[in-house]
Parts: sequence; C-alpha cells; structure tokens
Amino acid sequence: MPDVCVLGLGLIGGSVLRAASAAGWTAWGATKSAVDVEAARADGFDVTADLDEALRRAAEVDALVVLAVPLPAVDDVLRRVTALAPKARLTDVVSVKEPVDDAVRRLAPTTRYVGGHPMAGASTSGWAAGSGSLFDGAAWVVAVDDDSDQAVLRDVVEFALATGAHVVPTSAAEHDSAVGRISHLPHILATVLAAVGADGGPLALSLAAGSFTDGTRVAGTRPELVRAMCEGNRSALLDAVDDALGRLGAARGSLASTGGLAKTIDAGHQARKAFDAQKTAERTDVTIDLGSAGAPAALRALGARGGRIVSLRGKTARAKTS
Amino acid sequence: MPDVCVLGLGLIGGSVLRAASAAGWTAWGATKSAVDVEAARADGFDVTADLDEALRRAAEVDALVVLAVPLPAVDDVLRRVTALAPKARLTDVVSVKEPVDDAVRRLAPTTRYVGGHPMAGASTSGWAAGSGSLFDGAAWVVAVDDDSDQAVLRDVVEFALATGAHVVPTSAAEHDSAVGRISHLPHILATVLAAVGADGGPLALSLAAGSFTDGTRVAGTRPELVRAMCEGNRSALLDAVDDALGRLGAARGSLASTGGLAKTIDAGHQARKAFDAQKTAERTDVTIDLGSAGAPAALRALGARGGRIVSLRGKTARAKTS
Repeated sequence: MPDVCVLGLGLIGGSVLRAASAAGWTAWGATKSAVDVEAARADGFDVTADLDEALRRAAEVDALVVLAVPLPAVDDVLRRVTALAPKARLTDVVSVKEPVDDAVRRLAPTTRYVGGHPMAGASTSGWAAGSGSLFDGAAWVVAVDDDSDQAVLRDVVEFALATGAHVVPTSAAEHDSAVGRISHLPHILATVLAAVGADGGPLALSLAAGSFTDGTRVAGTRPELVRAMCEGNRSALLDAVDDALGRLGAARGSLASTGGLAKTIDAGHQARKAFDAQKTAERTDVTIDLGSAGAPAALRALGARGGRIVSLRGKTARAKTS
Repeated sequence: MPDVCVLGLGLIGGSVLRAASAAGWTAWGATKSAVDVEAARADGFDVTADLDEALRRAAEVDALVVLAVPLPAVDDVLRRVTALAPKARLTDVVSVKEPVDDAVRRLAPTTRYVGGHPMAGASTSGWAAGSGSLFDGAAWVVAVDDDSDQAVLRDVVEFALATGAHVVPTSAAEHDSAVGRISHLPHILATVLAAVGADGGPLALSLAAGSFTDGTRVAGTRPELVRAMCEGNRSALLDAVDDALGRLGAARGSLASTGGLAKTIDAGHQARKAFDAQKTAERTDVTIDLGSAGAPAALRALGARGGRIVSLRGKTARAKTS
C-alpha cells in the first residue's frame, strides 16, 4: 500500500486522514486553515499549512494524493499537483465526478487519476467535525474508465475498503446522474418544502410533525455546502429536477381534474419499497480480477446492478450483487 | 367532565379510547371491525360492534361523541348520530376540518359540534397499532368558529389536554391550509422523490444515504391512508402544490440560466431555521376565558401566532405564546 497525502482537511478530508492513519497507512495532510492545522496537530496528525511541501513529499515516495477540497478550489490545487507531482497517483473525494475529471484532463493530464466519492454526511464541516469512522458502512464510489490506471484503481479500492466503506464502481457520468437523483434533488426538495411550510406562518410551523421534520432536515445544512454540491452537478441535477417537476405537475393535474392521487402515491410507495427491498436483498458473491482487460466493463456492470466490492485480495476484488 | 364515546377504533380512535380511559374518563367505543372488537375487549376496553348501541348510550348520558372514522365514512356515521343522538356533544379526529364541518352542517346540524385533529403519526393502522401515549407532546388542533358551542369547546380542550396533547386553536380553513403545507405536501414530495430515485435504477438506490432515506420515509406509509388524507384536502393541497411547483420551477430556471441556486437554497435554509427557532423560542404565559364573548377570536389569534393551550382551570385556558 502506498503512503497517502490528503489535500484539504474539512469534514471529509479530515475523516480520510484519520481513517487512513487508523488503518495503518502512513498519511499526512495539508490545509489552508490555520485553525485546522493547529487542531489536527493537537490531535497528533502530521499536518502542514504548506501545500507544496505536502506535494513534494508525495512525489518523493509516489504517495496516493487525495484531493479533498471543495469543487471551486480544485483547479488551483491541480495546478500545484502538476507543478510538484506531475505523475502522482491521484484520487479525490469531491461530490461530482465529471467536472473533476474534466479539470484533471485540462490541468493535470500526466497524473494517474481515478476519481472517488464517499457517500458520507456533510451537514457539518471543518477538521473538528470529522471522524475516523465516518465511512463505516458507507458506499464509496470509484469512477472507472476504460483507460483507468489499473494500479491506481487498485490503490483507491484498497484505500476505500480500509476506511470501512464498500466500493461501488461506476462511470463518472452515471455517478453524477445517480447523485443528482438521490442526493442533490433531496436537498432541493427539502428547501422547497421548508419554504412552503414557512409561507404558512407560525400556525403551520406549530403543527409540523414527523413528515415535515424529516422532509426538511437537510435544509438545515450550510447553504454554501449545498450550493457547491448542487451547482457543481448542474446538468445531471437539471434532469432530476425536470423528472420531479413532471411528476409533481402530473399529481397537480390529477388532483385538480379528478381529485385523485392514486397514481402518484402508488408509484412513490412502490419506489420506496424497492429501495427498502434492495437494502435487504439476498446477495450473491462474485469476484473480479482488477488486472484483467475486461475489468472496467465488469466493474461498471456490477455497480449498475446495485453491486459492491467488499474486500480485496491481491488484484482480486470480491463483490456482492443482488 | 362528560363520558366519552369513540366511533372508529383504528390507530387514532383506538389511541383516543385508551388515552381517555387512562385519564380517568368513562369511555366506550364502537367499530365495524370484528377483529378490532375482539382485540380491544381482550385488552379490557368497553367496545361494541353495534354503532347504534354506542350512540344510544351516548345520548342517555350526554357523552362527548368522538368521530374517529376515515373521511369517506363520516357521512354514514353522521346519519346515525342524527338518528340516535341528535343533540350530541360532538367532535372528531379526522385529518381535514372543512369537509367534516360541511358534512356536519348537512347531516347532523342539531349536534353541538367542535372539530379537532390530533397531529399524531399515521404510518400504521388498526386497534393493535394504537397507544394511550400516542398524543403525549403532540399538537391537538381545535377548530373554533364564532358560533362554536362554548361548553363543548371547553370539553374538547379538556379532553385533548387529558390525552397529553397541547391544544392549538384555529379555524377549520386555516387548519386545512396549514396541514396541506406541513403534512400533505410532505407526503406528495416524498412520493415524487422516491419515484425519481427509483428511475435511476439499482445504482442510484445503492448510493442513497440520509437525505434520500429521510426525504422518502413517509412514502412508506400505506397508500390508502395517504390518499384519504391528501385527496380529502384537495383545495388546500392544490395551493401548497402550486407553491412548491412555483419554487421548484424557479430553481430550475435559475440553475439552467445562471447555474446558481442561492435564492432557493438560502430561502429554504432560513425557513428551516425559523422552524427550529419556533420550537425552542422563549414563550410567555397568557390566559383566555373560554366563556367570554371574545374567546373565539382570541383563541384563533393565539393559534395564528404559533401559541398553544397547555392547561385548563375551570373556564380559564392557560396558554403559551412566543
């Protein structure tokens, strides 16, 4: 296993550094936040405010560099990577994959990049909010292209598994489409619901119970985090919003014309049952040789079926699929 | 305090009967479900399958009759009330207030009716699902008209408080508008979100985490319960859906044209903060004399400010308002 250099030590990056250290990897990090440098050092971690220093060290030992900065900061950091570690093993934990992929092709084309995205909570931020167990039981997406570097792909899978996550392989485009539907749209609908509720004044809010509380919970997330996540996935989120507008408009039309909502409510109920069923489905074991020529296609097919890599021995990924 | 006759012993009616008995009221119930009659009797409650018998007994002792049947069954039960207890003290626990109010005016105009609605969960059903503590800490709406019978208004407030709830007074129309926003719209948005997520296939569902799980939770509610609730509040729900469609459409337009979502996300975040703030706000004590001429207007104003009645001494309601 390579050493690990984590760039950015907010909730996710800080948790990555902790989890890497806990799993026995030699790991260090860099952050622009003086407060977070001090806090991380006080917690016993090898952390610097000097990004270039962290990258020089990564280049010397061919470390796996983990980009853990917000999307708007990615370009600047990639320029430093190209300057100081142009052939780095590179991954990231940013919440959208095609924009980061594009940025790497533009600004750090000689790095060996395999994108990643751990599906872990983001309603708090900063080093202090992190935890080495943040990824326990979480899905960690790894974006697999036909030309992905096999060695780095294996590194990233090994690293994600070491943090306690399972790995869901897919393409960058399919990842962005999926998270538009199950992560970014929920945030938009939560903000819309919260605003419609508040439009009803203190009386409406005084009557709100479980359905409103649950449905608006993520509207409590810091707006700048939600904006960065949603605006960064513009194209896929537009598709998801259009699907939602179509379905909500159809419900409106049916309620206005016939008074009935059976189609909307039954479809949503079936969908939620499918979600619950997928979580508890019997799974079968499969193995995929990460060194084989067909590995990228086999991995993407695994993810498309709702499957996941749960362990790794050498180059052999052991997976579960329903 | 009057005796209590509960008609309908599903989740809410069964919980009303248990809570009334636990609070020391003489209470009996009726349900068409033979299974529920047997289960309730086995639990030691005074329950019959003969609605007319329960109503004759209510008429004899001038009991408070609590309508706890689903909205589609309200008309039939009101015809029996008019036949057997035409001057009954009457309340209800149905999830919409104007349609029940209209039905009472048409079918049981000589009863002394004051509508109610406890804001308690409804994702399960039947006698077995009920609990005497279902209303602990819940809001119990009491619909107050200028011509509400003062004695029955006092009975209903006393009864709701005895179950462990606090009382939120408002008008039938304002109640229906508010629950359209904070109870019925959340169910519609949850079904829409669940369907959009499932449209993404097994990959999308395998990546779904907290925001999707929370945002779709109430889509797991039995569809017939959700339909009855939402379709019964057609007019107010249409207003809430139109508000949501307008806000979601504005978000769509902004994302497509400028790429920005600041307005949507900031407004939702502020709304959610207002909701949290209202729950924890400092409250001041006020009292309202339920026997005074100005009581109905004072009660509705209390509810409109987000206030609540927390106890009753004689005809004096003690309330908290922010």
